[in-house]
Amino acid sequence: MAHRSRLATLVIDSDAPRQGSAIAFWAGALGRMRRADDDPAARYAHLETPAGPTLDVILQATTSDHEGVHFDIETDDVAAEVERLETLGARRLRHVEDWWVMRAPSGQVFCVIPVQSAAWPEGALKWPDEV
Amino acid sequence: MAHRSRLATLVIDSDAPRQGSAIAFWAGALGRMRRADDDPAARYAHLETPAGPTLDVILQATTSDHEGVHFDIETDDVAAEVERLETLGARRLRHVEDWWVMRAPSGQVFCVIPVQSAAWPEGALKWPDEV
Repeated sequence: MAHRSRLATLVIDSDAPRQGSAIAFWAGALGRMRRADDDPAARYAHLETPAGPTLDVILQATTSDHEGVHFDIETDDVAAEVERLETLGARRLRHVEDWWVMRAPSGQVFCVIPVQSAAWPEGALKWPDEV
Repeated sequence: MAHRSRLATLVIDSDAPRQGSAIAFWAGALGRMRRADDDPAARYAHLETPAGPTLDVILQATTSDHEGVHFDIETDDVAAEVERLETLGARRLRHVEDWWVMRAPSGQVFCVIPVQSAAWPEGALKWPDEV
């Protein structure tokens, strides 16, 4: 058995009242319009992704007064990928809906998410799983 | 006149004593080995970048006890790109060597750097400059 994963999404976190300003700025800065099919009331805003194995950029409105950037690792087997990353020294922080928030041994917080990008599996690596 | 820019580099910042652990973890997590030509004593560590218009990943040892992620916008004209981003609402924080550290109106800190990726200008957008 094996599963795959890829560095898939750059998530720009903004304090909720500044989410509108974040979307306007980053769409202009990166030259990526907000997706036409996006729900304007949702907590996440998605920018258009150019073709090819590049990263999606999404903007998250947070309630924790946190401004920063994190990224998501996308995988076709969240449980197996979380176990692989634990073996490398990461630890689980919390389970949210269908993804895990984890912390690297060097401190960075990131998420392990199920497949959701249009580019999948472009650029994904295959990892053998223990039997 | 016009200049170009692209979202080019994901920078993983670690407190300096944890830089070794950060390199080991993220190389394994992303399946990108540290570049063979990298200077092991340098403040920056570079991971191998797969072919195509994806992002470079580098690890920076910081002295500010800061753990997080930021990204770099790469451009063939740093001054023109900084001006363009100021017009969108970003402001300059400081000039370091040949790049600028800026803050988005939504709070995120990022850098505007001269061309340095092997992929340039793949994925770069062209911006008309005022005359």
